[in-house]
Amino acid sequence: MSQANIMDDEVDIVIGALHSDLTTFMNEWRPVFSQFHLIIVKDPDLSGEIQIPEGFNVDVYTRSDIDRVVGSSTSILFSGYSCRYFGYLMSRKKYVISIDDDCIPAKDNEGSLVDIVAQHITNLITPATPFFFNTLYDPYRKGADFVRGYPFSLREGVTCALSCGLWLNLADYDAPTQALKPELRNSRYVDAVLTVPVRAMLPLSGINIAFDRELVGPALIPALKLAGEGKFRWETMEDIWSGMCVKVISDHMGLGVKSGLPYVWRNERGNAIESLKKEWEGVKLMEEVVPFFQAVRLPRSAVTAEDCVVELAKIVKEQLGQSNPMFVRAAEAMVEWIKVWKAVQSG
Amino acid sequence: MSQANIMDDEVDIVIGALHSDLTTFMNEWRPVFSQFHLIIVKDPDLSGEIQIPEGFNVDVYTRSDIDRVVGSSTSILFSGYSCRYFGYLMSRKKYVISIDDDCIPAKDNEGSLVDIVAQHITNLITPATPFFFNTLYDPYRKGADFVRGYPFSLREGVTCALSCGLWLNLADYDAPTQALKPELRNSRYVDAVLTVPVRAMLPLSGINIAFDRELVGPALIPALKLAGEGKFRWETMEDIWSGMCVKVISDHMGLGVKSGLPYVWRNERGNAIESLKKEWEGVKLMEEVVPFFQAVRLPRSAVTAEDCVVELAKIVKEQLGQSNPMFVRAAEAMVEWIKVWKAVQSG
Repeated sequence: MSQANIMDDEVDIVIGALHSDLTTFMNEWRPVFSQFHLIIVKDPDLSGEIQIPEGFNVDVYTRSDIDRVVGSSTSILFSGYSCRYFGYLMSRKKYVISIDDDCIPAKDNEGSLVDIVAQHITNLITPATPFFFNTLYDPYRKGADFVRGYPFSLREGVTCALSCGLWLNLADYDAPTQALKPELRNSRYVDAVLTVPVRAMLPLSGINIAFDRELVGPALIPALKLAGEGKFRWETMEDIWSGMCVKVISDHMGLGVKSGLPYVWRNERGNAIESLKKEWEGVKLMEEVVPFFQAVRLPRSAVTAEDCVVELAKIVKEQLGQSNPMFVRAAEAMVEWIKVWKAVQSG
Repeated sequence: MSQANIMDDEVDIVIGALHSDLTTFMNEWRPVFSQFHLIIVKDPDLSGEIQIPEGFNVDVYTRSDIDRVVGSSTSILFSGYSCRYFGYLMSRKKYVISIDDDCIPAKDNEGSLVDIVAQHITNLITPATPFFFNTLYDPYRKGADFVRGYPFSLREGVTCALSCGLWLNLADYDAPTQALKPELRNSRYVDAVLTVPVRAMLPLSGINIAFDRELVGPALIPALKLAGEGKFRWETMEDIWSGMCVKVISDHMGLGVKSGLPYVWRNERGNAIESLKKEWEGVKLMEEVVPFFQAVRLPRSAVTAEDCVVELAKIVKEQLGQSNPMFVRAAEAMVEWIKVWKAVQSG
C-alpha cells in the first residue's frame, strides 16, 4: 500500500499560526503542501493580519470563528500552540497533519526533500505492531519484514492512529536542556519508523504529527494549560498531555502509535535562559503525570475515543485533581471538548 | 563514558563453532577481536579439527570439556547453536559478546568498519531507559539528549543488561519468510540504539549479542530444543526463548535491554525451502510462548538472576508444561543450568 491510494481530499494540513507573516513558511512548504487543503488557525492572542502567499487552498480561522463555534466562556483555551486544536475541530477529513510554523522541510540522508505528507500517510495507512517488538523496525516497509520468532498471529498488525515525526537542527528539548547545552543540535537522521509498544508511554511532541481524525481526533485535546505558558514550545505541555491521552486511549482501543520518520527542519526560536526564569511547572508536573498515565486503565464500556476521553477525565479529576487545580481544569476542558466535538461533528 | 573505560580484560568474545574451519571468519574479525580473549566452543556434533589462524588469545572447548564440566547425562544440550552457552559458563569476565560464525564485520553508512565490541560495550556501560520512551532514541549518545516531557527522575536510567545487535545482508528472518521472499536482503543501516520498554517482549536473535554476565549470565539458557532442530538459525528457537527469559528477568530486576547498533554482515547459508520440509514446530510454538512471557510475573523474593530462572522454570512447567513436553524439558534444563552455573562459578 502507498500514500498514492489515499485521495488528496482525505487529508487536512492544520497549521497553528503563532506568527502573522507565514510567507516564508508557506513558500518553503509549497512543494509538499500545495495539492492539499490547509486549515490555518491564528493564535487568538496574535495581532496583525495573517499573511499567506497565493496559490494555496486554505481556510483561515481567527478568534471570532472560535468564539462563534465554541463560545467565549468556554474552559477550553485555544491560545498559543493550542490554537491548532480548533483546526482539528473544523476538519472534515479522515487524516490530519499538523506542523509548527517554525519548521521547514528537512532533507534525508541522500539530500532529497522529505515529503512529510507522504511519509505520515504511509505511517497511518500501514499497520502498527504494538504487541511485540520487531527488531528491524517497521516490518511493512519495503525491504523489511518480521524477524524470526515474531508470532504469525500478530503479523497482521493493528490500525495506526497516530504518527509522531521528529526534528532535525533544533530538537524538541526542554528549556533546562537547551540552556545547559546551547550548542546542542540534532543532526542525525535515523531512517526508521517504529511502533511504540502497548503500555509504553512517550512524550508526544506536537511539532510534527499526523493522526486518523475519525478514530482518535477527539483524543487530541487542548486540556493542560500551564500557568506560565508562553509562546515557545519548551514553555508548553499541552501536546505532551494530549499525547499521553491518545496513547492510553489507543492502547485501550487496540490501535497503534508510531514514532520516527518523517523529520522536519526546526529553526532556532526563543531564549532558553529567559524561559528558565519563568515557572518550571511543566517539568515538575511530569513526575506526577507519567506514573498516572502508566497506571490508568479505562473501563471496557468505553469503546469510542469520545467515551474514553470522558472516562479519562473522570479519573484525572479523582486521582490528580487533589494535588493541583490545574488537573481539575484539564479534566473539565476534556469533558467540554467532547461536548463541543460532538456538536461540531453533528452540526 | 566510552568503551575506553572498560579494560580489555573485562570482555570475553564467545564463538560457537558450527564450522570447523574458522580461518576466514577469524581473519575477517582480526581488527576487532585481536586484543580480546576469545572462547570458542566446538559444536559437539561437529567432526574435524577446529582450524584457527595464528595471533589470537583463544581457549577452545570441545565435547570432552563439556562432558567433564557438565557431565554426559545432563538434560542441558549443548549441540548446534547451543554450544556457545558452554562458553558463557566458562567465561570469567564481566561482559560477554557472542557472534555467529557465519557473520563478518559490517560497514556503516560512511563505509567504516563497524567495531562491534566498542558499540556493544558502549550499549552496556551507558544506562538504559525502559520506563519511558525517548523519541530521539538513545539519550546518552553524543549529540542526543532526553526530549521535552521526559521526567527528570527517570533521566538517570538503569543498568543495561543486554545489547542486541542487528544484521545487514541476510537478516534473521524465519524459513517461511525467506522462502517466500528469496531475494529479501537487509540493506538499511539504521543508525540508532534504543531501549526496549519494560514489559515489551522482543524476539532476541542470538546472532549478534552482548550481555553483562555478572548480572544476567545465568538467564541466558540453552533450554528450548526443538525436535527437528537443525544447524541453521531459522531451524532453532533457543535464542528466542532465552531472550524472553532474559527480558522478563531484566524487567523484574529493574535492568534494561537495548536493540539496534551494532550491525554485522551476515552471509547466505542454507536453503529455506529445505528447512520448510522439516517440522515447523518453532513457528507454532511462538503463539503460546509470547502470551506466556507477556503475562508472567516473578515473585518479589527472586532477587538474583539465578533465583529468577528457578522461579521462571517452575511457572513454565506449571503453565506451559501440560500443552507440550518440550516445555517440561525446557523447565528441567533451566533448573539444571542454574545448578551447573552455581557449581562452575564457585568451583
